[in-house]
Amino acid sequence: AIADAIERILPGLHGASLAGRHVLITAGPTYEPIDPVRYIANRSSGKQGHALARVAKDMGAKVTLVSGPTNLPDMPGVTTIKVETATDMLDAALAALPVDVAICAAAVADWRAAHQAAQKLKKEDGQTGLNLALARNPDILATLAAPGARRPTLVIGFAAETETIITHAQAKLSRKGADWIVANDVSPDTGIMGGDHTEVHLVSATGVEDWPAMGKDEMAAKLLARAAEALHAMQLAAE
Amino acid sequence: AIADAIERILPGLHGASLAGRHVLITAGPTYEPIDPVRYIANRSSGKQGHALARVAKDMGAKVTLVSGPTNLPDMPGVTTIKVETATDMLDAALAALPVDVAICAAAVADWRAAHQAAQKLKKEDGQTGLNLALARNPDILATLAAPGARRPTLVIGFAAETETIITHAQAKLSRKGADWIVANDVSPDTGIMGGDHTEVHLVSATGVEDWPAMGKDEMAAKLLARAAEALHAMQLAAE
Repeated sequence: AIADAIERILPGLHGASLAGRHVLITAGPTYEPIDPVRYIANRSSGKQGHALARVAKDMGAKVTLVSGPTNLPDMPGVTTIKVETATDMLDAALAALPVDVAICAAAVADWRAAHQAAQKLKKEDGQTGLNLALARNPDILATLAAPGARRPTLVIGFAAETETIITHAQAKLSRKGADWIVANDVSPDTGIMGGDHTEVHLVSATGVEDWPAMGKDEMAAKLLARAAEALHAMQLAAE
Repeated sequence: AIADAIERILPGLHGASLAGRHVLITAGPTYEPIDPVRYIANRSSGKQGHALARVAKDMGAKVTLVSGPTNLPDMPGVTTIKVETATDMLDAALAALPVDVAICAAAVADWRAAHQAAQKLKKEDGQTGLNLALARNPDILATLAAPGARRPTLVIGFAAETETIITHAQAKLSRKGADWIVANDVSPDTGIMGGDHTEVHLVSATGVEDWPAMGKDEMAAKLLARAAEALHAMQLAAE
């Protein structure tokens, strides 16, 4: 009971509270339309991002969740903004600023159709090939992590890779300007994409931590506890 | 009660029974992989195809449902084969033959990635454009409708269009060799794709019928009653 009281009075003491913090989380896939019925998608289920939002809310944060299309239920107490494309996801994320922590867990499409057709594309008789012209999508993580007055105190990205996981994640960390990259292997045989478990590596400027396999809820709690500690340490350092 | 007894004894009398018939239905979208995590999809929910399977089973048919990825529950009494790609859907449909009626309600992707990458595609720094090479998928409707000993007695296709609906459907009827084409307008503002209602035109060699807007279940019942009548008439003509 005394420990509980201390926790209530000094939430920063053990670093595990996010009371008074605003946390922005992106989640799920994006859908990039080719024409009115076809689109490019990816196999993200949104489970990791939604787990992060739920845990952040339970830790006392104000939570804004910007989610691509998923089959997951809405969460009471979490402001959820539903989007389809990377462009709409970026707009919604920027509109949520300022925030203390931004966690980019969405599997944002790198590419969209360069020209979205207003009518369903027809195939010609005998046409055996087609080149679909793609254009680069905006980079949400890099945009949020760019220096500036509205940059979140802590910017965390995810790297879903299928090979040379750590090397790719370290390159992503410096290229995007993020503080941490949560890297994982989404090869189909791992069952991570769409599944309930994950196995990640936390990559930062100070090194790489290999976390054991765990549930996505447990990973969310561990990552957000680390984020709360980091925010608290930065606040102490600034005082 | 006498009417009921006649219906039991002479199911063909009113044409609304499919007892003793084998009905093959394709449903849903197909997913065409680009790499281990990305794919091309379309906005088909599978609701129309699943409604057809449920009604056909209720009318006494043996039903094989070949379904692309959907969020719909499995149906007891319907043999359901789950597939992702157009190629797998064709293989499963051919394996289900012989059947009396084939209804191709799936929104099969016309195109797949010409080269499916074994690893997640990486983007290069500064790369602003990309051409995705696409190859034609097999044509499931045309394959099932092609003349031959295993051709179903009745082959019904769907045409999901966003403009000049009837013209496109009539062209599809002759090009594919189908007996009937069920044509509808899937422009996003109709709410048909993904919704519970539909508004179709039944296109055959003898003309075009405009059906009123109705639920997808009701449309399934009306279409299958027509199919049962047609099978019965063809059987009488052959005797």
